Amino acid sequence: MTVALERGAELDRSDPLRDHADRFVPTDGSVRAYLDGNSLGRPAVDLAQVMADFINHSWGSRLIRGWDEEWMDWPLAVGDALAAAALGAAAGQTIIADSTSVLIYKLARAALSLRSPERDEIVVDVDNFPTDRYLISGIADELGLRLRWIRTDADLGITPDLVARTVGERTALFLASHISYRSGYIADAAEITRIVHAAGAPVLWDLCHSVGAIPIALDNWQVDFAVGCGYKFLNGGPGAPAFGYVGARHQDQARQPLQGWMGHARPFEMGPGYQPHPGIRSFLTGTPPILAMVPLRHAIGMITEVGLDAIRAKSLALTDFAIELIDERLVPLGVRLASPRDHEHRGGHVTIVGDGFAEVKDELWKRGVLPDFRRPDGIRLGLSPLSTRFAEVALAVEEIADILG
Amino acid sequence: MTVALERGAELDRSDPLRDHADRFVPTDGSVRAYLDGNSLGRPAVDLAQVMADFINHSWGSRLIRGWDEEWMDWPLAVGDALAAAALGAAAGQTIIADSTSVLIYKLARAALSLRSPERDEIVVDVDNFPTDRYLISGIADELGLRLRWIRTDADLGITPDLVARTVGERTALFLASHISYRSGYIADAAEITRIVHAAGAPVLWDLCHSVGAIPIALDNWQVDFAVGCGYKFLNGGPGAPAFGYVGARHQDQARQPLQGWMGHARPFEMGPGYQPHPGIRSFLTGTPPILAMVPLRHAIGMITEVGLDAIRAKSLALTDFAIELIDERLVPLGVRLASPRDHEHRGGHVTIVGDGFAEVKDELWKRGVLPDFRRPDGIRLGLSPLSTRFAEVALAVEEIADILG
Repeated sequence: MTVALERGAELDRSDPLRDHADRFVPTDGSVRAYLDGNSLGRPAVDLAQVMADFINHSWGSRLIRGWDEEWMDWPLAVGDALAAAALGAAAGQTIIADSTSVLIYKLARAALSLRSPERDEIVVDVDNFPTDRYLISGIADELGLRLRWIRTDADLGITPDLVARTVGERTALFLASHISYRSGYIADAAEITRIVHAAGAPVLWDLCHSVGAIPIALDNWQVDFAVGCGYKFLNGGPGAPAFGYVGARHQDQARQPLQGWMGHARPFEMGPGYQPHPGIRSFLTGTPPILAMVPLRHAIGMITEVGLDAIRAKSLALTDFAIELIDERLVPLGVRLASPRDHEHRGGHVTIVGDGFAEVKDELWKRGVLPDFRRPDGIRLGLSPLSTRFAEVALAVEEIADILG
Repeated sequence: MTVALERGAELDRSDPLRDHADRFVPTDGSVRAYLDGNSLGRPAVDLAQVMADFINHSWGSRLIRGWDEEWMDWPLAVGDALAAAALGAAAGQTIIADSTSVLIYKLARAALSLRSPERDEIVVDVDNFPTDRYLISGIADELGLRLRWIRTDADLGITPDLVARTVGERTALFLASHISYRSGYIADAAEITRIVHAAGAPVLWDLCHSVGAIPIALDNWQVDFAVGCGYKFLNGGPGAPAFGYVGARHQDQARQPLQGWMGHARPFEMGPGYQPHPGIRSFLTGTPPILAMVPLRHAIGMITEVGLDAIRAKSLALTDFAIELIDERLVPLGVRLASPRDHEHRGGHVTIVGDGFAEVKDELWKRGVLPDFRRPDGIRLGLSPLSTRFAEVALAVEEIADILG
């Protein structure tokens, strides 16, 4: 065992969350280190039983009665549980629904329903996640608005300074990711929100890479709109439903255009004419994805139990360890760290770049070490605080060193 | 045992699909007859195991590799399986995605992207399902179009004659339900599609109450767009993903506005600028709901195995029996059948109306007989061919007679 592997094992022994890693389904023999929990989180060991109970005793036995008895409340109740555990948001502002992409469309359109006609620009950065950029481009085309692109440093992300230089009296909406999907850079969401508000516009934050990894304080930051992903650090399973947050003060003014029956004030009257439900419920569209919420609901329970402060402490310990090993073992081999070093701006994943990294990633996968790859040359080590072991970090760095060496 | 109950038991014994009813999770002691499988279909006995295998061996072990290995194909592959089993559609035209409501928005917008400016009316009927009416009203407002309402007979539904009198050179889109959610009336989709096409407009059929209950022939009928529900006769579970069909000839012209990364030609290049994927894939938006597709995929397998002709034969036998008992036992008590009597126009559910039926429904639920209720006075008996027993039909009618008598 190398020094790095020994240190990883030692850190695992002293990790206060070490028991939690045992609560996830063990990877099979084909995986020695899983470092992509920020693309797809892992299932809990007891999830199959939770799902069997849901299928046989809730769906299978309560049948249609399940809707009145509890399911109609789930989009808001599970949203509230997530808000309390991970979003720093009071109840009644968060729903579980749709996909991140569909919610970006709905909430961006809702945000833009508030604009005055002279505000005709949407501010977005070139390094935002593709689906955000694609959707907002489509919306701008549809509504005859202009996109104002911010050029960010790809190793970092969006900064208050860049935003302050861009927003103004023509800004209708600001859209950005709280944590950059590539570099892991944490934007100063509180300060940026303040700057955008000072320019008279609302913000829409994409929390996909921050939710479940770092503390978030949507209410304190006075965020207007936010969306995020259920299948990354929230462990909701492939294609899990997403969540959307609409600040209470906007809920009865902002209107999203997908006005389906679940957003109606009295859906089961089935009457003529759409009347939006008061509050956050008007942001629902179709029948809520109840079965698909079961894993997410279960995982939110685990996050609630552990708490975001303990999760963030473990996350920083994991990324500290990763950066230490990268500096020791990989930088001498020509690898460059493409993520922030300071805790303040460092999220839950770490990206390294180097020559031939597309092939390095392929070789890593063959060896059972699974990081993600981001074109053109980034290997992204995603460290999921509840499930990743320090030993996995050490193994990944050792294998990269071996391939490069 | 009454004569009706004896006849129900006898029909169950001679039912060629009798073994299939045993393949669903038995209802618990609180349910004696489940007659709402057209609102929420039941889970299969082996589904919990199928889901456990997915959670532990696919999601939990293949992890992120699952996307490349198979999940990226699921929205189209499961769509194709459904198309072959139940839609009469060739491969490459059907996706599993989103919810029915979100897909109505996307496909109606796509259909309207084809219109010429002088076509400014959307034709829809007053008895269409609420979410269809609410969504299309919102779209009309957004795009500055006018809704042209058809008044249908609520006991029946949309007819070729009513459509022929309404569509014309101003028609931009025709939207209707293939089977009325209230009366169960089957619209002549082939003839109505022909009439709308002759007026120069496309059709969008809502198949929620027909898919999995009666044979459908989208390709032969030259349907343009269709959507449908995964949790009724398709047994996909509460809030299951929906499906959307776009005729091959429209796929590269019609554009839906929710242009997320999964509809992009090369999503993992993550490049600037949205480029729609050729074919049906451009109708995807966000990350596909893979876990939520597991029950639907399993249920489609059962439909494929049995075949729609056998399913329809059982469905007609169930509704024949229901109508026979209604005539014998309930009509003398003042109940009226509010569904078609002829096989040609009779779908998979039967609605009866009468005084005080809201209270009758409450009493039925207390007695463990679960039909649906549709305001103001309709009790809807949903007969799901794969899972409903004739004995359940007999029991429901006997209990209604007992309450009224």
